[in-house]
Amino acid sequence: MRITIIGSGNVATHLAAAFKNAGHRIVQVYSRTMQNAALLAYHVGAEAIDELTHINTETDIFVISVKDDAIGGIAEVLAGYNKLIVHTSGASSLAFIKAFTDNAGVFYPLQTFSKTRELDFRNVPLCLEGADDEIVNTLQELARTVSNKVYLVNSDQRKILHLAAVFACNFPNYLYHVSQQLLAQHDLAFDLIRPLIDETAQKVQQHNPADVQTGPAVRNDEITMNAHLQLLDGQTDLQLIYEVLSQGIIKMDKST
Amino acid sequence: MRITIIGSGNVATHLAAAFKNAGHRIVQVYSRTMQNAALLAYHVGAEAIDELTHINTETDIFVISVKDDAIGGIAEVLAGYNKLIVHTSGASSLAFIKAFTDNAGVFYPLQTFSKTRELDFRNVPLCLEGADDEIVNTLQELARTVSNKVYLVNSDQRKILHLAAVFACNFPNYLYHVSQQLLAQHDLAFDLIRPLIDETAQKVQQHNPADVQTGPAVRNDEITMNAHLQLLDGQTDLQLIYEVLSQGIIKMDKST
Repeated sequence: MRITIIGSGNVATHLAAAFKNAGHRIVQVYSRTMQNAALLAYHVGAEAIDELTHINTETDIFVISVKDDAIGGIAEVLAGYNKLIVHTSGASSLAFIKAFTDNAGVFYPLQTFSKTRELDFRNVPLCLEGADDEIVNTLQELARTVSNKVYLVNSDQRKILHLAAVFACNFPNYLYHVSQQLLAQHDLAFDLIRPLIDETAQKVQQHNPADVQTGPAVRNDEITMNAHLQLLDGQTDLQLIYEVLSQGIIKMDKST
Repeated sequence: MRITIIGSGNVATHLAAAFKNAGHRIVQVYSRTMQNAALLAYHVGAEAIDELTHINTETDIFVISVKDDAIGGIAEVLAGYNKLIVHTSGASSLAFIKAFTDNAGVFYPLQTFSKTRELDFRNVPLCLEGADDEIVNTLQELARTVSNKVYLVNSDQRKILHLAAVFACNFPNYLYHVSQQLLAQHDLAFDLIRPLIDETAQKVQQHNPADVQTGPAVRNDEITMNAHLQLLDGQTDLQLIYEVLSQGIIKMDKST
C-alpha cells in the first residue's frame, strides 16, 4: 500500500519502519517540525512535509499518530482527500475521525515504543477497528503484513486495553524506578535487580500473575512488611505506595 | 562440597538443583513434611529426613531455606554440629545464625522462584555475607560454581535489596494481575498485554526506567487520567492505586 504517516513520535517511527520493512511505500511523513519529519522520512525513503497543504494525494491511507487532542483537527483537514484515515491511539475512539469521514479506522499497536530501542514488530499486538466491514478487511490485510498478532477491538474495549496497559507497563516501569532509587540511596547497583525484573515478566508469559505472586504481602508476613515500612521512614509517598499495593496483594490472595 | 539443604520450598528447590548440577553432593534434604523432603531429595539424589535429630554430620555446609521466623530455631539446633551454617533470606540479618555460632553466613539468591518454572541459575545474583573472611571466601567459591553474578552484601544492604525487590517484582506482578482482571471484565484476553509486559521489562535491562517511562502520567495528560479513573468507577481500591502511582510518575518526571 501507499501510506502517509502523520506524526514523527515513537509510535509513528516504529510503525513507519515496520510498514517500510514489509514492502509498503511510505509516501510522505508529516510533522509540524520539519526537522522531525525529515529525520523519519529519510529513514523510510519518504518525502518530508511540515504543512498539511503539501499532502500528496497519491496515497491509500493516512495514519495519524499524534497527540490525542490533535487527532480531530488533523482528521478534519485530511477528510477532504477522500482516502482511508486511521489513528493509532489507545485512548481515543473511532468517532474522532468518523466525525469528518466514514472512511475511518483505528490501527492501535499495543506496545511501549522508544525510539532508542528496536523491537520485533511481528510480536506487537495490533488492535483494529473500522467504520465498516470493507475497512476492517483492508486494515486486517495491512496489519498482517507487519504483525502476527492482529485483533479486532471496538472503541470501548480499546479504552479498557489502554487502561490495562497503564497497569501492566507504565506503573511497573515506575516501580522499577523506585527500586533503582532505593538501591542508589545505599550505593547498590540496579544491575542486582535487573534479572529479577526480567524473570518476573517472563513468568507471566505462560502463567497467570496470581499463580506466581511471591513476597511478604501474599504470605501476609506482617513482620517483614512492618520492617519495610520502617526502612521507608521519611519517604511517605513510598510508604503509601507500599501499603496500598500490599493491601491489594493481601486481598488478591484471598479471592483466588 | 557436601551440602545439606534445610527446607523444601521454592528457593530450596532451585538452589539444591543448581548445586547438584554444578557437581556438588546434596547429602540430605530436611523438611517438617516427609513428603516434601522426599520429593526434593529424590530429584537431587539425597536422603530425605523430617527430624533434625537425623542429621548426617558428614557434610560441609547447612543451607537453611525456610520461613524467616523459623531460621533462628533451626540454627540453634544445627550449631551443635560445628559446620558452616548459612540462611538464604533477604529479609533476615546474619545475626539470626551468629547468635548461636561464628561459623555463619548468608547465601541470598535475588530472584523470584516458582517450582513450576525452570530458570538459568547462572544469571541469578547471589548476595553473600560471612562472619569472617574465610567464610566469605568459602561462600564465594561455592557461589561461583552455580552463578556468574556473585556479590558481597552486608545485612543492612540486603534488607534494602529485599525491599527493592518487592518494588521491582512483587508489586509489578500484582499490577499484571490487576491488568488481567480489567481485561477479563470486558472479555479481553491477557495475551493482548503479555508482549507489552515483556517489552517493558526488557527495556530496563539496558536503560534507566526514568528514561523510558511512557503513559499519560509522564505527559501529565489529565484528560486521559480522568477518563481512566472514570473507567474504574466503583473500584475504589484500583482508583487509589491509579492515583498514587500516577502522582509518583508526575513527580518523578519533574525530578529527572
